[in-house]
Amino acid sequence: GPVSTIVRELRCMCLTTTQGIHPRMITKVQVIAAGPQCSKVEVVATLKNGKKICLDPEAPKIKKIVQKILESHGSTA
Amino acid sequence: GPVSTIVRELRCMCLTTTQGIHPRMITKVQVIAAGPQCSKVEVVATLKNGKKICLDPEAPKIKKIVQKILESHGSTA
Repeated sequence: GPVSTIVRELRCMCLTTTQGIHPRMITKVQVIAAGPQCSKVEVVATLKNGKKICLDPEAPKIKKIVQKILESHGSTA
Repeated sequence: GPVSTIVRELRCMCLTTTQGIHPRMITKVQVIAAGPQCSKVEVVATLKNGKKICLDPEAPKIKKIVQKILESHGSTA
């Protein structure tokens, strides 16, 4: 199931964020705009081992991670 | 339900991509790395009206859209 820090969809999902994740470990990144359910932007990454973690949307590295995934052409799965 | 062009999770989700979507219409963007289920990167956006559309990961505009959402601080919902 999702990591304990992620609470039900109706409120903010991310209480804590994880640092130092390598893009290759990530299978999916969800960038959730601020809205009625949560007043801040949230970035939830699903890892290859199935775990979900929250990333800090303000960290420059996160933008790089998203760029890397956008630019990757077919991983050697 | 999801837009007709999105097929079951087990294969690629996006058959066609939509152009010219304004970031403000987007509540969530999923960037899905290439992997066993699909050999190309896929970008699925959920719109405020609940519809899901696919965006072209290669289009420079998409990177800007993701940037905009990452940098937005609480929308006036």
